Amino acid sequence: VSRDGGDPPPGAAATAAAEVEAAHRGYYAAWEAGNLRAVADAWLEAEDVCCVFPGAEPHLGSDDVRRLVTEGVELTPGIQFLFEQVDVTVRGDVARLSCVENVVTADTFSLSDVTDLPATRMGVTSTFVRTPDGWRLWLHTVGPVITHLDLED
Amino acid sequence: VSRDGGDPPPGAAATAAAEVEAAHRGYYAAWEAGNLRAVADAWLEAEDVCCVFPGAEPHLGSDDVRRLVTEGVELTPGIQFLFEQVDVTVRGDVARLSCVENVVTADTFSLSDVTDLPATRMGVTSTFVRTPDGWRLWLHTVGPVITHLDLED
Repeated sequence: VSRDGGDPPPGAAATAAAEVEAAHRGYYAAWEAGNLRAVADAWLEAEDVCCVFPGAEPHLGSDDVRRLVTEGVELTPGIQFLFEQVDVTVRGDVARLSCVENVVTADTFSLSDVTDLPATRMGVTSTFVRTPDGWRLWLHTVGPVITHLDLED
Repeated sequence: VSRDGGDPPPGAAATAAAEVEAAHRGYYAAWEAGNLRAVADAWLEAEDVCCVFPGAEPHLGSDDVRRLVTEGVELTPGIQFLFEQVDVTVRGDVARLSCVENVVTADTFSLSDVTDLPATRMGVTSTFVRTPDGWRLWLHTVGPVITHLDLED
């Protein structure tokens, strides 16, 4: 967990970062549980929300994003997520979380069914906005990590 | 250009959004020109910056991100970028830009040389932070758009 750019004392920043990580984990737990309402309600109710799923163009606005994530939950029964490299930073009322998401799917769905992308390892970058009801997703981008790709070679 | 959640009058929000789009386009123009210094300086000087390139895990921190983008510029001489669906929203001192990035490369480099990913169409999500010197990148995520992928089918 990194901190930067904030006025609050370290304790407040650490608390905010912990809240953001809890919001992130709660979102994915709701997805695993198939809780459509909780998944949708993890997002800001706003026209400027943005969601990018692996291989897809950006989706914008509450209606489109909620439809997208609802369909995503319905398409992935039995999915489970394991996270690595979780990093959270808070700047005022906006937070950024990045991590690597490892996906374990039931036999019913694999991203590799519809594309050549590997299905099990994703890079995730999210931003959250602080609201009176807690941290809500503002931006959420998921893309495949190509494990054999090393541009530095 | 969408707006949301801000106190400033519409004129100020529109100005801020235009500034953010200019920062985005300036970043890519510097990349096309091979201007390593300008590409690096488009980023916040902070440990909480984050950059995700197609197929790669998140990179964190000024040193790592500046090294990554410098190598990126050096690996892609002659590259050109064309943008579609540019959308900017500003919340206080943080802005989010999303777009689709069409990549035109010289013969010297193609992402398809090292992976099965198509090389020409990317989804981009960035966040910028307002500083006394203008808007700087805080988070920048680029991932492939798979044109034959339609999860809704």
